[in-house]
Amino acid sequence: MTRTTTAAMPALQVAHWFNTPRPLTLEALRGHVVVLHAFQMLCPGCVSHGLPQAQRLHQMFAPEQVAVLGLHTVFEHHAVMGSQQALQAFIHEYRLTFPISIDQPDGHDGVPLTMQALRLRGTPSLVVLDQQGQVRLHHFGAIDDLRLGALIGQLVGEARPPVTEQEAAAGCDDQGCALPSAVASA
Amino acid sequence: MTRTTTAAMPALQVAHWFNTPRPLTLEALRGHVVVLHAFQMLCPGCVSHGLPQAQRLHQMFAPEQVAVLGLHTVFEHHAVMGSQQALQAFIHEYRLTFPISIDQPDGHDGVPLTMQALRLRGTPSLVVLDQQGQVRLHHFGAIDDLRLGALIGQLVGEARPPVTEQEAAAGCDDQGCALPSAVASA
Amino acid sequence: MTRTTTAAMPALQVAHWFNTPRPLTLEALRGHVVVLHAFQMLCPGCVSHGLPQAQRLHQMFAPEQVAVLGLHTVFEHHAVMGSQQALQAFIHEYRLTFPISIDQPDGHDGVPLTMQALRLRGTPSLVVLDQQGQVRLHHFGAIDDLRLGALIGQLVGEARPPVTEQEAAAGCDDQGCALPSAVASA
Amino acid sequence: MTRTTTAAMPALQVAHWFNTPRPLTLEALRGHVVVLHAFQMLCPGCVSHGLPQAQRLHQMFAPEQVAVLGLHTVFEHHAVMGSQQALQAFIHEYRLTFPISIDQPDGHDGVPLTMQALRLRGTPSLVVLDQQGQVRLHHFGAIDDLRLGALIGQLVGEARPPVTEQEAAAGCDDQGCALPSAVASA
Repeated sequence: MTRTTTAAMPALQVAHWFNTPRPLTLEALRGHVVVLHAFQMLCPGCVSHGLPQAQRLHQMFAPEQVAVLGLHTVFEHHAVMGSQQALQAFIHEYRLTFPISIDQPDGHDGVPLTMQALRLRGTPSLVVLDQQGQVRLHHFGAIDDLRLGALIGQLVGEARPPVTEQEAAAGCDDQGCALPSAVASA
Repeated sequence: MTRTTTAAMPALQVAHWFNTPRPLTLEALRGHVVVLHAFQMLCPGCVSHGLPQAQRLHQMFAPEQVAVLGLHTVFEHHAVMGSQQALQAFIHEYRLTFPISIDQPDGHDGVPLTMQALRLRGTPSLVVLDQQGQVRLHHFGAIDDLRLGALIGQLVGEARPPVTEQEAAAGCDDQGCALPSAVASA
Repeated sequence: MTRTTTAAMPALQVAHWFNTPRPLTLEALRGHVVVLHAFQMLCPGCVSHGLPQAQRLHQMFAPEQVAVLGLHTVFEHHAVMGSQQALQAFIHEYRLTFPISIDQPDGHDGVPLTMQALRLRGTPSLVVLDQQGQVRLHHFGAIDDLRLGALIGQLVGEARPPVTEQEAAAGCDDQGCALPSAVASA
Repeated sequence: MTRTTTAAMPALQVAHWFNTPRPLTLEALRGHVVVLHAFQMLCPGCVSHGLPQAQRLHQMFAPEQVAVLGLHTVFEHHAVMGSQQALQAFIHEYRLTFPISIDQPDGHDGVPLTMQALRLRGTPSLVVLDQQGQVRLHHFGAIDDLRLGALIGQLVGEARPPVTEQEAAAGCDDQGCALPSAVASA
């Protein structure tokens, strides 16, 4: 079946959020299956395949089960794609309605911080987390609907784990979350 | 999410099988997720969408998890599509490799017997059974890959039930199976 | 641009016509661009690409400019595809509305006669004739819409030739046409 | 067949050219069929349909027969799409190889000048000129390959007109051309 993995997930480092009234954190999404789609607005494979797939996922699944997040990981053409205004126009024209964040720039027109932490190979990339926040898929390039649907369906069907003391103690603020020690040391 | 249902499944009534060394029964597939695709070889929606989707499913999932079955439910143009030879040529030309059966004719060029028992509305139709043999999807028309993948992924992830005494005692022969009483009365 | 050729065209040898009140002949279509699509009903490339393309051509061009003809060239699975009834059901289910003919069988379940005379390599094949009845494209396999459209547009734009004495003298009956000597000896 | 028209064509007013060693003028392209594709880089229909179609046209036809030109007509999101650098990155990422121009801004973030002169209704738009520089198609929205191919094939097949004295005398510079009087008064 779908190639899966189990690994800890670093916190998102985000410069700005669109399509959400307040910043989102992975910590706060524990208990949901999370589909993180990393893209660039000038990446043809993202525009033709990855973003429409993410939008369909967002519309298909109940929000209490699956959270679809976009991550604009600008690692080239910074002057063109790097502004908040540029992404806002893109989101408007492509009618994207799921929460989308701008990956925090590294300050030197290099690879942004979340993309570095996730060791993404490029765009489009998909990272899928189970309800416990563990990475179950880490994929570069296009992935077909049947395979992705099967993985998400499986993860939605898994029993929701009880909240541990460590998770309950994890601290989050608007910019991200401090990972609980159990996950950070995994 | 995907519209699902839970209902008992009648036994298949089959005139002939292709792509399998011996006849299959739903009883013997207990413990697998079963995807039954009902089609006709002169049905454009089956040829363009349903059968390629079934073939992809067959190639994607491990056979010990998901069994994909075709059911040729000839309810029109019997003289053209009704022969075993016609379906054999079709299967060969379309490179279909999953097990495919001919629904048992009613003897009067009407709706064949399994199609009647399943109350299918036409072709293409999909019936998806969980590992306990219960109907979880009963769908007429095209269904997209993401939705179907999600359902199958969820059903694959469900805990496999222990074999009951009733199931162990269920009798099958080459033409089909006598349903165990627990299912038959559901 | 499109690979083209100029060669004489043999007459069609046809066992039966559908979607036309009376048999058609290439001779009678002189002055039209003729697009002949050779197919088999169990040929996946014909069903998914060639026949929908032929149907779109038929709907797009004025009948006094372009004549789209289908030719069912059964060279395998004769018992399944060879009957008039089988093709009639297929035409009905796929909603094909352009004139379609059955290529005359050779009497021994081999390659039918028009297919032999045209030296077609298989199905789908396209043969495009200009307004003078000369072969301008002889193509095996799929051909894209842009390329085919460009050729047809070019041929439609060519000046219509005056009818020669030889053409005026050519004899046709319901089963086909005797080629005028100028063409037959080309 | 394809909806066509015959009208005079205003000169292009262009701020910058890509993919060409020197600025192009419609005057200098007299004798070619010209396909002008007006687009915006944040227009989904341009990205998914119009630009790939223009690229295919550019690759299919001989350059001495058909000239495919892009025109970036920014009439919204000027701050995002309006820079030369943004379009350069877009052209690079989408691997576009035909000559592309930036429509001359009106100076007030409104509709740029060529778009105004051509009375385009939006993007994507196609304007097709025959070998004499007359407008033969003026189309807003997607147009299918078969229809567009047929028109271009027809125009390519038309006899190339002799160069008139008026054309020979027409003056062009880097920013465009003064239309010869015969065309300007048509």
